[in-house]
Amino acid sequence: MVECSMPEMMSVVFPRGFKVGAGRAGLKKKGDDVMVLLGEVDCSAAAVFTTNRLCAAPVKYSRGVRDGGLSRAVVANSGNANAATGPQGLEDAAEMARLTASQAGTDAGKVFVASTGVIGTPLDMDRVRAGIEAAWSNIDRSEAAAEAASRAILTLDTRPKTAQREIDLFGRKVRIGAIAKGAGMLSPKMATMLAFITTDALIDAPLLQESLEKAVERSFNRVTVDGDMSTNDSVFLLASGLSEAGRIKGGSDGYARFDRALFDVCLDLAKMMAADGEGASKFVEVRVTGAVDEAAALAAARAIADSKLVKTAVFGADPNWGRVLAAAGYAGVPFDEEKAVLAFNGVRAFERGAPAAPSRDLDEAMKATEIIIELDLGLGSAQGAIYTCDLTYEYVRINAEYHT
Amino acid sequence: MVECSMPEMMSVVFPRGFKVGAGRAGLKKKGDDVMVLLGEVDCSAAAVFTTNRLCAAPVKYSRGVRDGGLSRAVVANSGNANAATGPQGLEDAAEMARLTASQAGTDAGKVFVASTGVIGTPLDMDRVRAGIEAAWSNIDRSEAAAEAASRAILTLDTRPKTAQREIDLFGRKVRIGAIAKGAGMLSPKMATMLAFITTDALIDAPLLQESLEKAVERSFNRVTVDGDMSTNDSVFLLASGLSEAGRIKGGSDGYARFDRALFDVCLDLAKMMAADGEGASKFVEVRVTGAVDEAAALAAARAIADSKLVKTAVFGADPNWGRVLAAAGYAGVPFDEEKAVLAFNGVRAFERGAPAAPSRDLDEAMKATEIIIELDLGLGSAQGAIYTCDLTYEYVRINAEYHT
Repeated sequence: MVECSMPEMMSVVFPRGFKVGAGRAGLKKKGDDVMVLLGEVDCSAAAVFTTNRLCAAPVKYSRGVRDGGLSRAVVANSGNANAATGPQGLEDAAEMARLTASQAGTDAGKVFVASTGVIGTPLDMDRVRAGIEAAWSNIDRSEAAAEAASRAILTLDTRPKTAQREIDLFGRKVRIGAIAKGAGMLSPKMATMLAFITTDALIDAPLLQESLEKAVERSFNRVTVDGDMSTNDSVFLLASGLSEAGRIKGGSDGYARFDRALFDVCLDLAKMMAADGEGASKFVEVRVTGAVDEAAALAAARAIADSKLVKTAVFGADPNWGRVLAAAGYAGVPFDEEKAVLAFNGVRAFERGAPAAPSRDLDEAMKATEIIIELDLGLGSAQGAIYTCDLTYEYVRINAEYHT
Repeated sequence: MVECSMPEMMSVVFPRGFKVGAGRAGLKKKGDDVMVLLGEVDCSAAAVFTTNRLCAAPVKYSRGVRDGGLSRAVVANSGNANAATGPQGLEDAAEMARLTASQAGTDAGKVFVASTGVIGTPLDMDRVRAGIEAAWSNIDRSEAAAEAASRAILTLDTRPKTAQREIDLFGRKVRIGAIAKGAGMLSPKMATMLAFITTDALIDAPLLQESLEKAVERSFNRVTVDGDMSTNDSVFLLASGLSEAGRIKGGSDGYARFDRALFDVCLDLAKMMAADGEGASKFVEVRVTGAVDEAAALAAARAIADSKLVKTAVFGADPNWGRVLAAAGYAGVPFDEEKAVLAFNGVRAFERGAPAAPSRDLDEAMKATEIIIELDLGLGSAQGAIYTCDLTYEYVRINAEYHT
């Protein structure tokens, strides 16, 4: 058996210098749907956004904040994506920033804005105003506040997603704490991914941005639920600098450890999103090894992870090695069936040109709720992994029954 | 309303010089599963095969026949793909050709071989031999024989697929007649696409190959059911030259008309495959216009047609324009929501940055069993179409319940 891949969920504690609040605007049918995050001080700010050419108003707004490199607060709503809403949408995003800035005693240019929910419907700003006010009224640094915030950003998710890491730096603790949401990749069914990451590290914005971009590339960008990309996907990172551990410099050992911890936080959240994919009954990690280079490994892994036939086979607990190999075969990268070795959860299914002997172990392995598909291409030494889930009746139900 | 897109099915009549037979080998649970096609004379031969790097033994064998440029006969079986079967698989494909050649009085090098069905199981050659013999015993030029042949090649298809065209050339009729199968794009669930096209045109193999490659590119290569590509996909074309209409020369008006008719036959079959996609309840044509070039139009159309969210929305009869625009937005081609116009079956849903007024017509339009999604990007004058179907519970059932 291969080692377990899924991280355990813990209740998140935000690092020094951060408070959060949650409130109800009434954009979702029930529960809190507005979240505010406040830094005690101006924070170094980094962010990565969707590359979809149809991008939502809050993404356009927040790009400007990211370019400034400083953030004091974040405001987010669920229930409405504020996407394809024209000039009014931009104005509404800016107003969400202004309302938050005035509570935080800062300028709107330092407030990140995020939205997730239905596309094409203007925000009901009266409700949003009330929601922001409600969120501010219970802003706090408690675990309960963090828990409430982690729920206020959810849409189709069946559970909150949080992650944290702690590293020692110059004899002091540096913490990273994060909450996220994401179950599909598209908004009409309210399934954008959003992540809000905080740290008390002292680090300049350009270096923070570099570290975040690397982490996102190797975590969130390696999740595929349905192959669709949201108009609202955003990852925000605020560094308060209150750890007293000294400034993290590029190229230093401290940076390497911070970089790794940030990646670990992002990977935890990414795996949780894959496992909570729309209608998912199983988490799937596709690991491709023995590739000629990393791009080839990832292309093969992505073709397998995106294959509807592979995803339905996992749902059906079928060790269908033919579908996996065929997907690798059309991935557009070097592939030779005579060299390939394929295993499901550590049990061989195909070995260099021929199916492995039929095995009860293989059928047993497929019954697990976490399936690791390992394909060794046998052509080189590069590797890469993509995270996804199975394709179920529930996925079809969720996405077919929704009406615009 | 836009014009109807789906062709009507007609009973096929093969052109002069061809006979077909169907027989039972017992590879499928019931019905005929072997088909033979015989030319009265050696025919100019063309073929296009899967580009999957995992390709089946009969594909490897038939490539050699295609390279020779002459074919006298075709043998095909359903129920077993003879893929990932190693050296034995190649030997079995060659034996299918030899058995057919000896009945046809020709050499095995002039016999195309095709298989479709499960991957990774060696052919039961005793059954295949009996099936080939049975097919030869009822070889005939009748409509009934053509009908039987069109059924013998089916696997998951719910209905046979046939097409034909007739053109006047130098005062004589030239006919093209074809049968095809294909419901998904991958073999473990027996869903390869195969097409067998015959014509009585007199035309040299290299020109025939050129015409076939163009036709395939604009028809079969524009169908997507699940985005997966089979290890066995093959399109065969035999030209008997018995039309008495004279030789078709490259660059001539006659060639242009033949070329067009061949394309029309391929497009008819391609649309039938999309409409009969695994679990499909609706045929979907995605037409993208106003693109900067044809590649951009096709990339946008393919992103929309491959989007699980769009396909489930069509299943749910939901005019979900947000999903269509978001897919166009991530297609990697120029896109500007302020210029885009989107319609479902001729009814506007989104116009230059804003949703069209809610309309009962739009909901009505989505209830049709044939949905034409028209997206005008408003950026240029190029266009392209991709053919697909909706994503249903039945798709998940078919592909999850099958066990290797």
